[in-house]
Amino acid sequence: MSSIFEITHKDAAGRIGKLKTPHGTVETPTVMPVINPNLQVIKPSEMRDFGAQMLITNSYIISRRDELREKALKDGLHSLLDFDGPIMTDSGSFQLSVYGDIEITNEQIIEFQKTIGSDVGVPLDIPTPPDVPRSRAESELETTIKRLIEARGMVNDEMLLAGPVQGSTYTDLREKCASTISEHKFDVYPIGAVVPLMESYRYAELVDVIVSSKKGLDPTVPVHLFGAGHPMMFALAVALGCDLFDSAAYALYAKDRRYITSKGTYHIDNLSYLPCSCPICVSHTAEEVKKADNCSDLLARHNLYVTFEEIRLIKQSIKEGNLLELVELRCRSHPRMLEALKRMYSYSDWIEKYDPASKSTFFYCGPESAQRPEVLRFSKRLERFTIKGTAVIRPFSMRTYPESDNDLIFKAPFGSFPAELSEVYPFNAEVINDTDLESLGKALENTIRLIELNPDAEFTFIKGKELEHPLFEKLEKIADVKE
Amino acid sequence: MSSIFEITHKDAAGRIGKLKTPHGTVETPTVMPVINPNLQVIKPSEMRDFGAQMLITNSYIISRRDELREKALKDGLHSLLDFDGPIMTDSGSFQLSVYGDIEITNEQIIEFQKTIGSDVGVPLDIPTPPDVPRSRAESELETTIKRLIEARGMVNDEMLLAGPVQGSTYTDLREKCASTISEHKFDVYPIGAVVPLMESYRYAELVDVIVSSKKGLDPTVPVHLFGAGHPMMFALAVALGCDLFDSAAYALYAKDRRYITSKGTYHIDNLSYLPCSCPICVSHTAEEVKKADNCSDLLARHNLYVTFEEIRLIKQSIKEGNLLELVELRCRSHPRMLEALKRMYSYSDWIEKYDPASKSTFFYCGPESAQRPEVLRFSKRLERFTIKGTAVIRPFSMRTYPESDNDLIFKAPFGSFPAELSEVYPFNAEVINDTDLESLGKALENTIRLIELNPDAEFTFIKGKELEHPLFEKLEKIADVKE
Ligand SMILES: [Mg+2]
Ligand SMILES: [Mg+2]
Ligand SMILES: [Zn+2]
Ligand SMILES: [Zn+2]
Repeated sequence: MSSIFEITHKDAAGRIGKLKTPHGTVETPTVMPVINPNLQVIKPSEMRDFGAQMLITNSYIISRRDELREKALKDGLHSLLDFDGPIMTDSGSFQLSVYGDIEITNEQIIEFQKTIGSDVGVPLDIPTPPDVPRSRAESELETTIKRLIEARGMVNDEMLLAGPVQGSTYTDLREKCASTISEHKFDVYPIGAVVPLMESYRYAELVDVIVSSKKGLDPTVPVHLFGAGHPMMFALAVALGCDLFDSAAYALYAKDRRYITSKGTYHIDNLSYLPCSCPICVSHTAEEVKKADNCSDLLARHNLYVTFEEIRLIKQSIKEGNLLELVELRCRSHPRMLEALKRMYSYSDWIEKYDPASKSTFFYCGPESAQRPEVLRFSKRLERFTIKGTAVIRPFSMRTYPESDNDLIFKAPFGSFPAELSEVYPFNAEVINDTDLESLGKALENTIRLIELNPDAEFTFIKGKELEHPLFEKLEKIADVKE
Repeated sequence: MSSIFEITHKDAAGRIGKLKTPHGTVETPTVMPVINPNLQVIKPSEMRDFGAQMLITNSYIISRRDELREKALKDGLHSLLDFDGPIMTDSGSFQLSVYGDIEITNEQIIEFQKTIGSDVGVPLDIPTPPDVPRSRAESELETTIKRLIEARGMVNDEMLLAGPVQGSTYTDLREKCASTISEHKFDVYPIGAVVPLMESYRYAELVDVIVSSKKGLDPTVPVHLFGAGHPMMFALAVALGCDLFDSAAYALYAKDRRYITSKGTYHIDNLSYLPCSCPICVSHTAEEVKKADNCSDLLARHNLYVTFEEIRLIKQSIKEGNLLELVELRCRSHPRMLEALKRMYSYSDWIEKYDPASKSTFFYCGPESAQRPEVLRFSKRLERFTIKGTAVIRPFSMRTYPESDNDLIFKAPFGSFPAELSEVYPFNAEVINDTDLESLGKALENTIRLIELNPDAEFTFIKGKELEHPLFEKLEKIADVKE
């Protein structure tokens, strides 16, 4: 267990946690606004007004510019930025990935981060992009791991040390990297080099990368999805166990006249109305923002407000146990996100290990809900139900029914379960009457398995009107199906 | 065509319009905050700050209280409320429905509304609740229509006159009422007595009531969904052609410590975080709001902000042509809303008549998207495609393919269409690779019909990997299916 990270609430593989740093404790999930040491659109000292608890900046950029470096060395990083809360520093890895070479060593940048008083330092890892040949991914990973171990040897308690997980789009390399570096006990684990996946809307592959990295990590350590700053994918990433995000997007998008929402991005010039209630949007019309001299400042502020609004909603959802409902909602914003949702549920078996067994209510949101960990958990436990004698399976909406030794209820997407469980989570689910084919199919599969597990019992299945599915043919062979 | 209502933009059966009233023009869709003449949580003069353009109050309450009545008669309604924009007045119908009897006649209340200078007056109709015996619905409707005609005879240009559509949950009565009163040319058509449906989450039946009412009305008249004030269902109602809403909810919910969002309602005491960026929510923590002496005032303000935020988002979506995407998103907030979405698309044939033929992009959001008017329109036009000789149908993701006389693309939920249309709306849709069964089924149905419509052509269907559906059996009988 991590001594600097305490998990206080859980839902799916997501959690609310407390991360202790030298400059105070932050509640996760949270986003660290990226501060460009050369150019500050919004002052670090203002960031708390938007909801920020922790910042991130770039130690390499500070080290390269004389006046920044000297002030940082003399007065410290917190004085340089005029922010007394936790500050994480990046190492120049990104610049390395863009320019191919930088003028600093891993040892030097770690030493510099320690000296200026960073709260979380990052080694000079190599952010291997997606789709490179495996040999390149492997050799760069070897270098990354060597540098991480070198850095680990240089840092004690003076700052937290991040151990980035690399491995390109090779999920086995991601998992192997994660488990290898875990032995060296880093404090925070960034998942690196995912920006190209997000930029090209490859969210399903992002899910693969997150899950494989998480599989190699101790589930109690804090995980940072490095470079992820768009609120549209926060809920998804949190549900998979990411705790920290960083956003340069708020400023970069603003510079490009783009207006962020939790459902996607607008170009301000295409907006006739401002679909937001933040202090900027309720005091300006779309036309006013477009024409304002400080348009990019206004947009950056709006972008930050909605970024932290989403974080608050996610935390609220974790506390209520309906994070998956939020993920299903957010993933309807774009077909590529919907693919990511389906990909996420292809890992339900893994999510199920972390998902609390009891919550308030399960809301059915569409065919993907049939793949939720709660449904999978029920499928796995079908052996536990021993049924003897006669059994009537009735639709959940039916109140009167023939007598039998076992009163069972059929409710998609689950299947058939003893009526006395119908008020227990997840069987108390709010579902739809006329369900989707995937959901009906899953429920019929589970029902057929239950019947097959109890070959001596005699089953009558009362079919709701208008239910049609190819699996009924199979069901009719093993049970008495009545309309 | 209505001379006081101009429709400027359309999407699905929804529209942006301009409604001319004696006190100015308002842009619809919009919400009229309900002003209680006895108790004003938020002053009418402040309402514009939240986005309100028009208010609604109750002329019966004003007429019953001496000091209000006298001031209204002496200085006028606008002076009484201190608001110089349009004000609609209700007639006491609601009080009638609650108390069974009220001390005013239809004639008196119409006269009173005219005298005090209401912008839109309402006759004393009878709001017949859902589920009453048909005989009661019919006889009350007869009285309502009689009073409406009486009122119509009393009002000229001095104020606009509303003609409420009643008929309980009998859709034929709703349609008949709408078409009967349409002959008498009212200015605004409220759909009445729907609050009980909304209070019990009977959104699918609400869809039935709206569509049947709309079917009896001229499509160019403004329609008011009377008593609807929760932003969760605005997008759905707008997509069905509602233009005006009224919200007492902002204040009533606040009094009850309830916090409105476009995804549903929270009790403030259950909130640990405020998932909103409005000026109230970014300047208070959840704890502060809970403990504030003016808690209900804070909540009422928050509730108003999010109410008008949703209206702005809906208008933006209409302008962009993605209102249906927004409806599909909003309807995932609750399984009862998901049922309403499915019900809405059961009327796709009706929606299709109003939906613009060309928009920007169609986003596939789930199995319901397969029932969108665009898909239905394509199904209806399959006869227009004449195919001769050989035809290859390839998956939309496949780039190289055998030569043939006709190059067709298979893309769910549409079906098969000539490749040259693939960049044209709606075939340029953003869809998911691994589609839902309903969507695949719809596409296969349309493909089978296309093949059957062209019996002389010779079809080869190149099947994408992992595609499984019972309809392939049928397809294999009429086309050469290759993996
Ligand atoms: Mg839940
Ligand atoms: Mg569209
Ligand atoms: Zn805003
Ligand atoms: Zn708010």
